[in-house]
Amino acid sequence: MKKVAVIMGSDSDFPVVSKACAELKAYGVPYECHVMSAHRTPALAADFADKAKENGFGVIICAAGMAAHLAGVIAGHTTLPVIGIPCKSSNLDGLDALLATVQMPSGIPVATVAIDGAKNAALLAIQMLALSDDGLAEKLEAAKAEMIEGVKAKDAALQEKLAAL
Amino acid sequence: MKKVAVIMGSDSDFPVVSKACAELKAYGVPYECHVMSAHRTPALAADFADKAKENGFGVIICAAGMAAHLAGVIAGHTTLPVIGIPCKSSNLDGLDALLATVQMPSGIPVATVAIDGAKNAALLAIQMLALSDDGLAEKLEAAKAEMIEGVKAKDAALQEKLAAL
Amino acid sequence: MKKVAVIMGSDSDFPVVSKACAELKAYGVPYECHVMSAHRTPALAADFADKAKENGFGVIICAAGMAAHLAGVIAGHTTLPVIGIPCKSSNLDGLDALLATVQMPSGIPVATVAIDGAKNAALLAIQMLALSDDGLAEKLEAAKAEMIEGVKAKDAALQEKLAAL
Amino acid sequence: MKKVAVIMGSDSDFPVVSKACAELKAYGVPYECHVMSAHRTPALAADFADKAKENGFGVIICAAGMAAHLAGVIAGHTTLPVIGIPCKSSNLDGLDALLATVQMPSGIPVATVAIDGAKNAALLAIQMLALSDDGLAEKLEAAKAEMIEGVKAKDAALQEKLAAL
Amino acid sequence: MKKVAVIMGSDSDFPVVSKACAELKAYGVPYECHVMSAHRTPALAADFADKAKENGFGVIICAAGMAAHLAGVIAGHTTLPVIGIPCKSSNLDGLDALLATVQMPSGIPVATVAIDGAKNAALLAIQMLALSDDGLAEKLEAAKAEMIEGVKAKDAALQEKLAAL
Amino acid sequence: MKKVAVIMGSDSDFPVVSKACAELKAYGVPYECHVMSAHRTPALAADFADKAKENGFGVIICAAGMAAHLAGVIAGHTTLPVIGIPCKSSNLDGLDALLATVQMPSGIPVATVAIDGAKNAALLAIQMLALSDDGLAEKLEAAKAEMIEGVKAKDAALQEKLAAL
Amino acid sequence: MKKVAVIMGSDSDFPVVSKACAELKAYGVPYECHVMSAHRTPALAADFADKAKENGFGVIICAAGMAAHLAGVIAGHTTLPVIGIPCKSSNLDGLDALLATVQMPSGIPVATVAIDGAKNAALLAIQMLALSDDGLAEKLEAAKAEMIEGVKAKDAALQEKLAAL
Amino acid sequence: MKKVAVIMGSDSDFPVVSKACAELKAYGVPYECHVMSAHRTPALAADFADKAKENGFGVIICAAGMAAHLAGVIAGHTTLPVIGIPCKSSNLDGLDALLATVQMPSGIPVATVAIDGAKNAALLAIQMLALSDDGLAEKLEAAKAEMIEGVKAKDAALQEKLAAL
Repeated sequence: MKKVAVIMGSDSDFPVVSKACAELKAYGVPYECHVMSAHRTPALAADFADKAKENGFGVIICAAGMAAHLAGVIAGHTTLPVIGIPCKSSNLDGLDALLATVQMPSGIPVATVAIDGAKNAALLAIQMLALSDDGLAEKLEAAKAEMIEGVKAKDAALQEKLAAL
Repeated sequence: MKKVAVIMGSDSDFPVVSKACAELKAYGVPYECHVMSAHRTPALAADFADKAKENGFGVIICAAGMAAHLAGVIAGHTTLPVIGIPCKSSNLDGLDALLATVQMPSGIPVATVAIDGAKNAALLAIQMLALSDDGLAEKLEAAKAEMIEGVKAKDAALQEKLAAL
Repeated sequence: MKKVAVIMGSDSDFPVVSKACAELKAYGVPYECHVMSAHRTPALAADFADKAKENGFGVIICAAGMAAHLAGVIAGHTTLPVIGIPCKSSNLDGLDALLATVQMPSGIPVATVAIDGAKNAALLAIQMLALSDDGLAEKLEAAKAEMIEGVKAKDAALQEKLAAL
Repeated sequence: MKKVAVIMGSDSDFPVVSKACAELKAYGVPYECHVMSAHRTPALAADFADKAKENGFGVIICAAGMAAHLAGVIAGHTTLPVIGIPCKSSNLDGLDALLATVQMPSGIPVATVAIDGAKNAALLAIQMLALSDDGLAEKLEAAKAEMIEGVKAKDAALQEKLAAL
Repeated sequence: MKKVAVIMGSDSDFPVVSKACAELKAYGVPYECHVMSAHRTPALAADFADKAKENGFGVIICAAGMAAHLAGVIAGHTTLPVIGIPCKSSNLDGLDALLATVQMPSGIPVATVAIDGAKNAALLAIQMLALSDDGLAEKLEAAKAEMIEGVKAKDAALQEKLAAL
Repeated sequence: MKKVAVIMGSDSDFPVVSKACAELKAYGVPYECHVMSAHRTPALAADFADKAKENGFGVIICAAGMAAHLAGVIAGHTTLPVIGIPCKSSNLDGLDALLATVQMPSGIPVATVAIDGAKNAALLAIQMLALSDDGLAEKLEAAKAEMIEGVKAKDAALQEKLAAL
Repeated sequence: MKKVAVIMGSDSDFPVVSKACAELKAYGVPYECHVMSAHRTPALAADFADKAKENGFGVIICAAGMAAHLAGVIAGHTTLPVIGIPCKSSNLDGLDALLATVQMPSGIPVATVAIDGAKNAALLAIQMLALSDDGLAEKLEAAKAEMIEGVKAKDAALQEKLAAL
Repeated sequence: MKKVAVIMGSDSDFPVVSKACAELKAYGVPYECHVMSAHRTPALAADFADKAKENGFGVIICAAGMAAHLAGVIAGHTTLPVIGIPCKSSNLDGLDALLATVQMPSGIPVATVAIDGAKNAALLAIQMLALSDDGLAEKLEAAKAEMIEGVKAKDAALQEKLAAL
């Protein structure tokens, strides 16, 4: 199976990014996770992206905050699908990272998820890989069914709580 | 090859959406394009999404404006990757559609592109399909190389223009 | 009397939503409260809305955060008035939920209240039901009168406080 | 049947507001339409709202732009449901009117629709009146069915257009 | 001397508003401070504004949050200058109150100060009264001179701190 | 009578600012109108503000766009009341000028009006001067009465228009 | 003298960028102007920045719109000062480009000017070069003096216009 | 070597500003740090800027919050490059200070860094001085190389952490 790369601009983003890793792990999808910066280590990031395909990666997830350029820069260096996670930092509530990630010019897409949406970034990568992997596709279906049961259980719990009031 | 579905909430979005169709066509990717609304024809949209996989679709692109719910609703009904194009409408400059498309809750990702970013939505779909289609992957590489030549040509043209000043 | 449905996209919204329940209870309006998601349990939500009228509901209040699609989706499945409560989540201060709730396309209205405005959502539902229920209408008038006395009392308390400075 | 009042802060809002009038007329709902300002004619507005119920009104729709106070002020003077239409004016793209209309304090709800969403304001008023008027409720159901056919027809037209390309 | 009225939409705004009172007191300007709501006690507010001039008020300061209508409504009922303090509430960081206060339509001005800018609201009122009160004007000049000395003292303290590093 | 100064950061703001001049003229209030910049002619602006009081000015109206510093800078040099008009320029819809004008720090108030709200700026200045000028105060009352008649006339015209439909 | 590089992400930005070129020319500062993209020609851009210093450049001005990464990417590859011009594109009024340019992480500064502020970008570059070039510094002083005369002339013209009314 | 001035509008900004001082110190660049306000001590600020060049300063860094005028005002009084740090204050998350700092009119640039971006402001000043100081330029190169090693070390640490999971 192709690997997923999960890279982040700063290790301070790991608490967010780790949710993507956990999701990939839960689905049995091989991944690598790295700290790499579009600004501080641009040559490393370019090199990583240039060789990602030949190194066995299928999807690259990039997490960055503020003027979040990582996903866009990586996308400039590969034709693999790139997923961007805009990370909230101390100011502007994540709006800066969201706009800097999603508003890509024509020709270089970045698949953007919600601010701090690391779990969804992983799910999206898994959905992409599942296009040619029926086992993964079945796991996604199973998870969706389980999610429905989860909501039903929460509703049932709520009914009990309300009845007890 | 799996098909790409391109659906839009209103046919007034077609001038934007048609750029996605044109890109898919240029890459020889089979697609269907439909008008379908999360609000006006919810049952149709749900049914389309429920059966998308068995009907041979691999990726679903959804374009909608204002409180753009189409991509999210479709994503709720499928485990295929869903790409959202937030469309600018007459007020708020597309910010409403962007936030309504990208800020999906955990568990149901939507791969969001830029406001009115239809061409990138198609490219993203092609990148996903290219994960298991080497022919497509090569076309993407060729297009990237061509893009570089295009920028170089524009720079050369600029140098001439500047020299002539 | 017709019932009011109070549904929320996630049980984490209950601290906000419970204020709507409390207000409905205070007015003696029958209600049901459920967890139900436009994204995680779309079929359940559609089914609930499709049958809401025949099941005795008059108004449906929907609370959701982020890309808040619940109210819009429910409104797509019913001709009952639907009230949307945009819930503040951890980023963007509720602006995402507000825009995703209020900016509905023509043909499918959602009566939107303030961010986290659960009490007002309930009052609005009660005002709607009071259009054909004189008893409720009188209670609303009484509450309005009481509210005036409440403000007067607070002003009086303030005068005492100021005098004591 | 109870009447709907459609009031606007300035006659320059009539091009927007007229869509509400047209919708009410199409449903055969009696209405009155007036220019009345929370700032320029506050006494008139207060008086209108104070007597709206005894004058046979069931719902009051208020349209205003900029620091849009009309709906909130009217809501302060009545227990009838009040619907607010935030109107876009020359600056800030309608965001000022939206926030000034929707962010009402606890106790005084305003049912807010989209910026310039006059047709939806009328539909919402009709939905409220339909709670106790089966004829109206049937018309709403019929319109919803017709809307579905409308979207289907647009999709069919699109298929022809695409086939012809 | 004419009095200044300081009114607030809710007594929860008093921690902010009290800074205006303190400033007025420091300048020896007579004032009254009241809780009064554009929405909850509209008749009281209208009556207060209608009679403010004959009751000896020269300036009216209004503090309110969210869809902050108080200043605008008061301004609709008087030709006295009205100063608006937009108060930050739990969502949207005060932007809603700012826009709802400052974006007044032509003909009804509200002199708006910064979000939670109660001290400046009082200073502005004092500046207005000082136009015909030389004693007040001198106090303002003295305070301005004192402010300069205050900044100089802070700079001196900083130099000491820096030298000690 | 004290004069009103109307100054603007750039003569390109004159189409907006001229409405303030027209209003002052209509009320017979003496004024001067100047181009003066906080950034391009800071010494002139400082000098003007320093001497404004002794030169017979009572109120200073400042209009500026973008990073609109003019009102704040003038306010730093005088204890006269300063009114700021944030002017919309080609980007950001006037939000930059609004925030740069209204968000003044404690101690230096600027009475801010709506974006491009020049007429209201003049009215506010007149209201301030009217505090010690009964003739002006009467004119303001008369204008307010006339405004009411104006709205009534517009409503009457609307009724005719509606009747004719 | 060191050269200034003026690079833009797309030749569609030239109408804005040309104002920077004109200013540099007027000051006799040598410059080169190129089309180069952080996303479409990342290797070219990196190479240009890596060698900029040895190629005789002193300052690099970068203009880009939307998710404007160009300035940040260039700054990652050089220790020369980098100036960013956020360009307005068809949506979001330039806010996306502004935030994507200015919100750089610690360690990699970009000197950001106003949206479409190309002339100021050039002036800033000239100010930097003037730190070690007295001739340039004198030209800047002369231009500043001329600017003052320009504003005075505009004020004089305005006085004539007003007198003629 | 020319000195860098670091001035702040209020000593409450020192926790942010001190990071600029620390960076300058680390590079051995002489600096002075002062409290000085565009609004509270305008004459001092103007005087400081007027004489900055002759007093040996090469670059002026200005930090201010809210309607942050300090950098713009200083820039109006000098032809030295001025760097603006928009400081976050209690409301609006720093957006007000950012827009008030960066949106300067043509002719008076302010080199704006990120909200609270004091370290980058210092680095930018050092980059400017390094244009004519090879020793400084080498230190910047060394720091850039060190930054790369720092990121690599963090990535190595992350790999250990992941392996241990």
